[in-house]
Amino acid sequence: MNAVVLNAPHEISVEKRKRPGIANSKDALVKVIVAGICGSELHPYRGQQNTTYGHVMGHEFTGIVEEVGSEVKSFKSGQHVVGTFSTACLSCWFCRYGHTNRCVNSLALGTQQIDGGQAEHVRVPNADGTLLLAPDDIDDELLVLMSDIFPTGYYGAMRAITQFRQPGEGVPETKLFEKQPLSEAVFVVVGCGIVGLCAVLTAHIRGVQSVYCVDSVDDRLEQAAKMGGIPLKLGRDDIPAIVRAATDGRGADAVIESVGNKAALRSAFDLLRPCGILSSVGFHQSELPFTGLECYQKNLSINFGRAPVRAVFEEAMHFFVENKSRFSEVISHRLSLAEAAKGYAIFDKQEARKVVLKP
Amino acid sequence: MNAVVLNAPHEISVEKRKRPGIANSKDALVKVIVAGICGSELHPYRGQQNTTYGHVMGHEFTGIVEEVGSEVKSFKSGQHVVGTFSTACLSCWFCRYGHTNRCVNSLALGTQQIDGGQAEHVRVPNADGTLLLAPDDIDDELLVLMSDIFPTGYYGAMRAITQFRQPGEGVPETKLFEKQPLSEAVFVVVGCGIVGLCAVLTAHIRGVQSVYCVDSVDDRLEQAAKMGGIPLKLGRDDIPAIVRAATDGRGADAVIESVGNKAALRSAFDLLRPCGILSSVGFHQSELPFTGLECYQKNLSINFGRAPVRAVFEEAMHFFVENKSRFSEVISHRLSLAEAAKGYAIFDKQEARKVVLKP
Repeated sequence: MNAVVLNAPHEISVEKRKRPGIANSKDALVKVIVAGICGSELHPYRGQQNTTYGHVMGHEFTGIVEEVGSEVKSFKSGQHVVGTFSTACLSCWFCRYGHTNRCVNSLALGTQQIDGGQAEHVRVPNADGTLLLAPDDIDDELLVLMSDIFPTGYYGAMRAITQFRQPGEGVPETKLFEKQPLSEAVFVVVGCGIVGLCAVLTAHIRGVQSVYCVDSVDDRLEQAAKMGGIPLKLGRDDIPAIVRAATDGRGADAVIESVGNKAALRSAFDLLRPCGILSSVGFHQSELPFTGLECYQKNLSINFGRAPVRAVFEEAMHFFVENKSRFSEVISHRLSLAEAAKGYAIFDKQEARKVVLKP
Repeated sequence: MNAVVLNAPHEISVEKRKRPGIANSKDALVKVIVAGICGSELHPYRGQQNTTYGHVMGHEFTGIVEEVGSEVKSFKSGQHVVGTFSTACLSCWFCRYGHTNRCVNSLALGTQQIDGGQAEHVRVPNADGTLLLAPDDIDDELLVLMSDIFPTGYYGAMRAITQFRQPGEGVPETKLFEKQPLSEAVFVVVGCGIVGLCAVLTAHIRGVQSVYCVDSVDDRLEQAAKMGGIPLKLGRDDIPAIVRAATDGRGADAVIESVGNKAALRSAFDLLRPCGILSSVGFHQSELPFTGLECYQKNLSINFGRAPVRAVFEEAMHFFVENKSRFSEVISHRLSLAEAAKGYAIFDKQEARKVVLKP
């Protein structure tokens, strides 16, 4: 079969590989319809991440089940499915309690751990916890956003909203103290790549009237506005002043950071009010850009890390299908698998919103 | 009147000061019955905190209202009260929504901002938000723990419990995923000074069966055991191994850190399982002892900062009165105001659990 392989930084090739088969009784073999290129794949592509090379790329894919192992219970040949970005066993302690992002048996697809979905076929271990049935009424090009991007942005926003809604971060409601209404809250999304766009939409639809969106790319800010956000351009707008003006000088009630570098995380911290909530879904690889004293003085609440895609999937899918019309312009490039190198290159140069590959 | 003054690091003296009066229509003048020495006062006492000297110390006190300004609504002369460690106006945005720890008009008692309660009298600005009526059935020596210590430990534990209870940190409960029961959770309290002891008691009484308690001082660990905790001694016990063994290798579900230094915060981080909750009430003044990559990989949730004592007060007081018998041995030293220098010295050497001063 044809498969997309990263052989060195910036060296994508489409190679002939042996078509995978069922290697384990919990595997499924999926014939790929659409595979996405994810922003997180740009880290190894750019040589910014400690990794090995030579495996098949891709952790976003949709397809048709061709074959299943003897222990697969939820799927059978011929079904239309979408894969999640890492496998989940559904039986370990972490999976049982919904922390599927920390499944102890997890394999990250499209890494040195296991070949990914940018190929004609993909072998999916622990298929019952890793695949989901596609709904009837959605194109594969949009469905592929459910592998990672949409659930991640959805989770980033919902984690902030859930914590915002909890009684005063531990403070009971009494006659004297109110709970700030979500509708009056001011949220900021730092980074309007597609994950950020999904977070903007989620926060807005879930009831936050004012969702400010920070990026340096005009096209992204235009998309953010279509998701219900208020665009703020780095280098053009005085972003701290605008957020302060919108909050009577306090700062934002919650900030969702989806970039994954120190500058973005520091900006998120600075835009936040005291006792605010910082939901960071960006992949951070360096030191934290604030001190213990700053965190203490701000009474900071912060959450880090990747989304439990399998655990949030049903809720996120329901939301996604209801709002799919908002994503009509998000897929900017539809290429054949043979054009993968071009797809990575334009995505790397921020000349594409989202690139999908079709075998 | 006599008042306790810090004139330089380690230089406590009892001096004659002018008795304060009502300076503002929202003030109350309180005749002090009992004043506590707080662990946080050891920072300026040891010269470890950037501060000025020469003010009256003390942010923990009980007493009798002697006089009130014309705008004080909730108090009158003769009432038995307890003060909170910083003033709260009850009218700013932060107070309204329960973030009394970040009242924009707040003054920290016993600092360069305003003279404190280690004196015969104390002037209390914004008395309606800063004083609370004493319940009938409690000694002043215990009541003084309600100024800061008990609400802080209570908040540290409740913040972890509240976040633990929220649906899967943003993950909805479905047929497939359960919510881990609080009774089966394993909590760790790092630091068994009195704030830590209050956190241990709160977590235990609120339903956490296994609350491990970490300290290096035998006496503190004995008290922690009386609060329902499982003592672990630094330098004697292999604490990470014990916590791992209690959690099938995962690590603690939540850790409450009450020490306020890098080593304690790092230890708290290391003892926590992936997707766990770190509630830090310690006063941190340095860099954070973990990287962005470590936070991402652990899917860390962490809260920092001081407690909104006024906002949690009623709930905390109810809990405290119900459990006051547990605190019978906590006040180890009762000294006269004239003996304040001795009180600071023995507290500094960790030879006292809690020192209270009586004018």
